Amino acid sequence: MSPCRRLFIFIAITVLVAGLFTVSATAAPLPGGQGGRAKYVFLFIGDGLGMPQRAAATEFLKDCGTERRLAMEAMPVHGVTSTHAADRFITGSAAAGTAMATGVKTNIGCIGVDPALRPVATLAERAKGRGFKVGIVSSVSIDHATPAAFYAHEPSRSMYHEIDHALAESDMDFFGGGGLKDPEGKKSEAPRGNALVAAKANGFTVADTRREIMGLKKGSGKVIAVNPRLPDGKALPYDMDRNRKDVSLAEFTEKAVELLDGDAGFFLMVEGGKIDWACHANDAAAAIKDTLAFDDAVAVAVGFAEKHPDETLIVVTGDHECGGLALGFSGTKYATSYSLMNRQAKSHQAFFDDVFAGHLKKKGRFEAAMKLVKAHFGLAPDADGPLALKPFEVAELKRAFDASLRGETLKPGMADYMLYGSYDPFTMQLTHLLNRKAGLGWTTYSHTGVPVLTSASGPGATLFGGSYDNTDIARKIARVMNL
Amino acid sequence: MSPCRRLFIFIAITVLVAGLFTVSATAAPLPGGQGGRAKYVFLFIGDGLGMPQRAAATEFLKDCGTERRLAMEAMPVHGVTSTHAADRFITGSAAAGTAMATGVKTNIGCIGVDPALRPVATLAERAKGRGFKVGIVSSVSIDHATPAAFYAHEPSRSMYHEIDHALAESDMDFFGGGGLKDPEGKKSEAPRGNALVAAKANGFTVADTRREIMGLKKGSGKVIAVNPRLPDGKALPYDMDRNRKDVSLAEFTEKAVELLDGDAGFFLMVEGGKIDWACHANDAAAAIKDTLAFDDAVAVAVGFAEKHPDETLIVVTGDHECGGLALGFSGTKYATSYSLMNRQAKSHQAFFDDVFAGHLKKKGRFEAAMKLVKAHFGLAPDADGPLALKPFEVAELKRAFDASLRGETLKPGMADYMLYGSYDPFTMQLTHLLNRKAGLGWTTYSHTGVPVLTSASGPGATLFGGSYDNTDIARKIARVMNL
Repeated sequence: MSPCRRLFIFIAITVLVAGLFTVSATAAPLPGGQGGRAKYVFLFIGDGLGMPQRAAATEFLKDCGTERRLAMEAMPVHGVTSTHAADRFITGSAAAGTAMATGVKTNIGCIGVDPALRPVATLAERAKGRGFKVGIVSSVSIDHATPAAFYAHEPSRSMYHEIDHALAESDMDFFGGGGLKDPEGKKSEAPRGNALVAAKANGFTVADTRREIMGLKKGSGKVIAVNPRLPDGKALPYDMDRNRKDVSLAEFTEKAVELLDGDAGFFLMVEGGKIDWACHANDAAAAIKDTLAFDDAVAVAVGFAEKHPDETLIVVTGDHECGGLALGFSGTKYATSYSLMNRQAKSHQAFFDDVFAGHLKKKGRFEAAMKLVKAHFGLAPDADGPLALKPFEVAELKRAFDASLRGETLKPGMADYMLYGSYDPFTMQLTHLLNRKAGLGWTTYSHTGVPVLTSASGPGATLFGGSYDNTDIARKIARVMNL
Repeated sequence: MSPCRRLFIFIAITVLVAGLFTVSATAAPLPGGQGGRAKYVFLFIGDGLGMPQRAAATEFLKDCGTERRLAMEAMPVHGVTSTHAADRFITGSAAAGTAMATGVKTNIGCIGVDPALRPVATLAERAKGRGFKVGIVSSVSIDHATPAAFYAHEPSRSMYHEIDHALAESDMDFFGGGGLKDPEGKKSEAPRGNALVAAKANGFTVADTRREIMGLKKGSGKVIAVNPRLPDGKALPYDMDRNRKDVSLAEFTEKAVELLDGDAGFFLMVEGGKIDWACHANDAAAAIKDTLAFDDAVAVAVGFAEKHPDETLIVVTGDHECGGLALGFSGTKYATSYSLMNRQAKSHQAFFDDVFAGHLKKKGRFEAAMKLVKAHFGLAPDADGPLALKPFEVAELKRAFDASLRGETLKPGMADYMLYGSYDPFTMQLTHLLNRKAGLGWTTYSHTGVPVLTSASGPGATLFGGSYDNTDIARKIARVMNL
């Protein structure tokens, strides 16, 4: 980025911050403690977390017979949030993230810029400018669209190298979760050197083992905390695939709170990014379990708020629904049994990577693959009850198996794309079959346009009731933080 | 029903009314005008109206370039309502209607009785007991589950003859919309004579032409107003099939308001019942247009409220989602074009009844059927743009056409049930195809378990924000009406 462009960004941000401050300074008093102002603000964004995902997780817990109630569902205020982008009804994470980070409606793919590609100040930047500590946590790569929308300003979400340098140059206090997708600029047209090296030069400590991350203490300075295992796309594993080496989203959130806590107050954005990835792949088990992991992170904030009830605003929302998840399926009519999800031992991704890819590579037979199916999904022609496969379902699996063997790339417009999307056909047919038997259906491998739910607690929370646009989330938070 | 059982019902209702009155009399003051009490209360229930249905109608209007905004979306308060039955996660209209009419969670199929089959007083009965006028309007038969839950007490929604007699014996002031399904007791184990004759003996005027209905004036006494055309199941036609002889749901609502208006105040329940039927059949065009017709009825209430702003509570909700409608489809990915729905000339029902049934009867050929398709849905291999059928889509239609010719009854568990449900396969494939091209998907021919939206305006409306159960709807309304 040229020095001239950077100066322009700086001026634009300064003007916007000043303008928004003028507006908020004249706003009416807010409900809640501390004059409705919050010193500690959590914004939880479940990527792909629509009302169906929340309701599926709630019903899953109930069907499993647990007493647990989702922390986000237990909040006192709930609202409905529209999600469209400036240029499309069905939004994407970049436009939605920018809307929630800046209050400005923008186009698909844009990160922290308006539709004319002009940089717009983000909540994180404005909070930082007002002396708050700031943290950004995500279960996907920390330069992915949603987190990036809080600290970067680029015309395209795929400019990972440029986003990585924006992260390195930023003065945010805590980045945690997944890694960086292009620190070295391998996919950039104008590589600028290793962004992680630049980050360290700019005062960041990089921690990338569980021990290092859990050992971070106050006074560690600016931190980039990266999970040691990044099995796919520099993201954390799906929560159902997490092992003892991994740091969970709740643990990252806990560590962020520990490091950010203090007289300055803080703004902490936590993204549950793999809910979206699970829903793209129509993997309900992974989606539900990542929603529960996301809610564990929300519970960390609720625990913090119990100690600072008059000063802590928690907002939990989604950027869009993903997958067209519905809590009912034609084959099961009015019956549901979401605890069947527990029969799935691994996420679709881990099943493919760790189990089925090897079977494909050695050109294994369908009959042998069906043994893997029984072991990892409980599904078999001779299985008990709802997991028993009917002959037509075995035929569906055989068709998918053959498609997996062919390995052709499916594209929208092709008949088989409706069945398998761009995923491994056999794995996709398996998650579809288990989902169907549980009484869940999907309509797409992409996002959908239905509004999402937003929940809130703490000072200013009542602002988050009713029906409003995703851009209002940024405006409401700015008002409560007096930005 | 035996005299003994009737006495028991009377006593049970009296006790319940007294008990609930005691509770509400001690309740805290309500927000809004008139001490938060409402003299005029509208409860609009969109059957099958989930958040996706509302959002699809909103986006349809936008995509058509109209300025219209849904009256229900323009309301100041919105909440999220869980819908489950006492004995099943995915509810049905009888259990959901009973929940909203009585505040009691009951089992699938139960009408105005608790899970032990004990009668429970309804809002309509309690309002009547307190001197309010009461009206019940529906676009399906007026003895269908949702309306019946407000005036009848039966263990099964299919006891239409008994429900019809409950209607005849009631002292509700206005019934309007569809007809009665079994007034003569043809399907009853213990027929009790013609319920319409009994209704007339009990003081009801029956109006069943547009002229008679529109001519009803104050002083007409108790009224049963039945649309002249009842093309299927004693219901009004789908709104997209309505002709000049029909009375629209908004007109029935307008007439009810005209007749009920007065010093006594009123409680008026209006059901948009055919939204559900359209969604069962995965017919998005009919669902969207019946949602708009339902919203036209809401607009009538909004117009009335403008004259009595401090005394009019309007609550708009759904009893459950239906169809697993999603605002996105795999084949179209992120693109949507809901105005394509306008290319469907008739509902699936009218297309089958008026067009395709004749073709089937005369064993017409597939090629000739495709001409009907082009005429009524705009879909054809040589159509322009998104309506062009790909070869695999024509093959899907051919397969469905052959299934229609065979005419076998499909049941859940059969592979083809997932494709066509229990409907005519060719018609079903057509609505599916058009829906898919518009960017809409479905997962089931039944209801689903996702929560619904509730919107409200007027005194006490703030009670309807947040997240709550469908039984709370009855409790909140009772509180605002001081029942």
